[in-house]
Amino acid sequence: MNVLGASVSEAITDPVHETRDILLPNQTEHVAQIAVDIGGSLAKIVYFTAFKGRTGGRLHFKKFETEKIDECIEFIAELVKDAQEGYEHRRPMVLKATGGGAHLYYDKLKSKLPGVHVQKEDEMECLITGLNFFITEIPYEAFTYDEQESDPMQFETNPSPHVYPYILVNIGSGVSVLKVTGPDEFSRISGTSLGGGTLWGLMSLLTKAETFDEMLEMSVTGDNRHVDLLVGDIYGSDYTKLGLKASRIASSFGKVFKKGKQPTDRQFNSPDIAKSLLYMVSNNIGQIAYLNARQHDIKRIYFGGCFIRGHPITMNTLSYAIKFWSNGTMKALFLRHEGHLGATGAFLKYSPIRKARHSFSFSENFTPDTSSHNPSRVYGDIEDTNVELLSQQQIEDDMIADAEN
Amino acid sequence: MNVLGASVSEAITDPVHETRDILLPNQTEHVAQIAVDIGGSLAKIVYFTAFKGRTGGRLHFKKFETEKIDECIEFIAELVKDAQEGYEHRRPMVLKATGGGAHLYYDKLKSKLPGVHVQKEDEMECLITGLNFFITEIPYEAFTYDEQESDPMQFETNPSPHVYPYILVNIGSGVSVLKVTGPDEFSRISGTSLGGGTLWGLMSLLTKAETFDEMLEMSVTGDNRHVDLLVGDIYGSDYTKLGLKASRIASSFGKVFKKGKQPTDRQFNSPDIAKSLLYMVSNNIGQIAYLNARQHDIKRIYFGGCFIRGHPITMNTLSYAIKFWSNGTMKALFLRHEGHLGATGAFLKYSPIRKARHSFSFSENFTPDTSSHNPSRVYGDIEDTNVELLSQQQIEDDMIADAEN
Repeated sequence: MNVLGASVSEAITDPVHETRDILLPNQTEHVAQIAVDIGGSLAKIVYFTAFKGRTGGRLHFKKFETEKIDECIEFIAELVKDAQEGYEHRRPMVLKATGGGAHLYYDKLKSKLPGVHVQKEDEMECLITGLNFFITEIPYEAFTYDEQESDPMQFETNPSPHVYPYILVNIGSGVSVLKVTGPDEFSRISGTSLGGGTLWGLMSLLTKAETFDEMLEMSVTGDNRHVDLLVGDIYGSDYTKLGLKASRIASSFGKVFKKGKQPTDRQFNSPDIAKSLLYMVSNNIGQIAYLNARQHDIKRIYFGGCFIRGHPITMNTLSYAIKFWSNGTMKALFLRHEGHLGATGAFLKYSPIRKARHSFSFSENFTPDTSSHNPSRVYGDIEDTNVELLSQQQIEDDMIADAEN
Repeated sequence: MNVLGASVSEAITDPVHETRDILLPNQTEHVAQIAVDIGGSLAKIVYFTAFKGRTGGRLHFKKFETEKIDECIEFIAELVKDAQEGYEHRRPMVLKATGGGAHLYYDKLKSKLPGVHVQKEDEMECLITGLNFFITEIPYEAFTYDEQESDPMQFETNPSPHVYPYILVNIGSGVSVLKVTGPDEFSRISGTSLGGGTLWGLMSLLTKAETFDEMLEMSVTGDNRHVDLLVGDIYGSDYTKLGLKASRIASSFGKVFKKGKQPTDRQFNSPDIAKSLLYMVSNNIGQIAYLNARQHDIKRIYFGGCFIRGHPITMNTLSYAIKFWSNGTMKALFLRHEGHLGATGAFLKYSPIRKARHSFSFSENFTPDTSSHNPSRVYGDIEDTNVELLSQQQIEDDMIADAEN
């Protein structure tokens, strides 16, 4: 199975359309279980299709804008329909739902999915369950990113249970910082309102970009020095005594006010603004992550959530911030399934799956091709990466049995 | 002497004009000593006029935009001229200069102020020298701010030498966080590029305001809930399990992207944007201040720099952030001379003043009138507040003697 499917780029520009393509019914797989994580900006779906006639199946990862919640629910309804067609004897269905939208849209989910048991799960619990699954069981899931290396992406090839303690920085519309000390031991220690929603919001007000990916793409060619005030702009050189280089950003957007007093003078270039905003938000998240990790004396920091999107500048900025502030003693780790931690956690909360979880192994036909030096080749495919579950027949039987109870 | 002078409001709308008014020569006072702190956005001047025929004198606090550095230097040249007229035998003059601009504009200062000895002083050292002077020697200098109290401003009436250790968060174009453990013991432990320059820059791009004070004023009537995504917008209610109230900001500007996809839809109200930006920047600075104070186990946090400007919402947001994150164990402290710490420190570096410093006492005819419940009545006057130095004749003699050497 080639996970780098042809519909990937469509997935990025138009996730709704892409997910519909995937929905074309086929005879060999049917939907067996579904979970959804409805956040402030995006709704993430994870669903499992069981192979027909043999063991195992596939995990699918999809995304919708929360604003289009009706399309998301319609998609779930189609999955439910497929599940019912696949397994005549298999009902009622359970939909595990997490994120704020599991509460906000609970009544809507119930009324639009008749016969489906909608079960709410705590958002933070799901995040951690999902992350622990990925980092302790999936090879090539976590990686570091450093543009200075000849190969910027370095994968952690062997998943290990020895990952605790760690910090999870989950960057959605806003940011949550969680401290995780064991498989089910965690607390939310901090957070910030300067997250993905801030970047999207400010970029849509200040640039001509129409989609988030367009904004990110635009930032690649931008030069933030046209809007940011650097140490060198203030000092004329490094501030040597404090070790602040001339190239360091002293004030994000610090050059704008000077130049832009009259509306007619407000000529700032979209790519420059996009890059400045991306640096501003990413640097700040990296710094808050570091300060929290430092306070709790933890060295491993995972970054999750839909904000990162495998974007090289974002990952490099977060990595650099952690490296800079910690003097290289801490490590920023990224995840190929970054956006689906909560949805995967909710999925795993379904009891037959939870029961069966340690009785089967996971594998994936994914080996990173980093030779292209283009992380999006490896990383941008995340929407479409399918984890193949080489399970025992038991999982399917269990799921059916549970659903019948 | 009434420090609440008539020219105060002019000082706020047009500092240059206001400072010129003050320059009108008079027969009873002449300029004796000058210091300047040239930052990324603002240049701050402190100068001392000695009373003629009796001991003592007055400290003056002025501000210019760094962009108009020539006007600033011209103002200094006039002060120099006044000094030379006042004391025939008194030359050469020394100009203590700090901030990045002391380096960037060093040659310009020298060439435009012939005969004046321009002496550069380290920015961080000056900040701390200035702050220590204010908080250990000036009554009614430091205060707390809490809108929930019947009288939001609570002054520390008795200056005390027992202020160490403390954190200084200096908010200029960017932000520096310093840890101070003794009168001359400090280190810069952190900083952020999201400072005053960021707020000014983003506000000037996103609102119709033309000056910083207009932006602040505008924010008072704004409602950030039209642009920020709140916990309640995501959850429909509080996220009780984590103690996150429905009213808490989950994502700054998190509502914009949803509403604003088409340029024609981008109808956001300036006051709402102004308030959201102010909350965003102030909350973030408060959080970073807290995290650093926590790391170093310090309870007192002073906020300085020209960003705050006695603005109630800013102070309340910073205070609230410290209170929220520290569970009430830490205290945010504000300063009436917040913007002039560095310039005052540079002023005090002048050796005759340093020598004489502990041989005279400072007093000021300022008693806060907080009955109006309007902090700007007390606080906005800061540009024009004059500290009266009830010194011995010695200080003047010393200064003259030193200048002759």
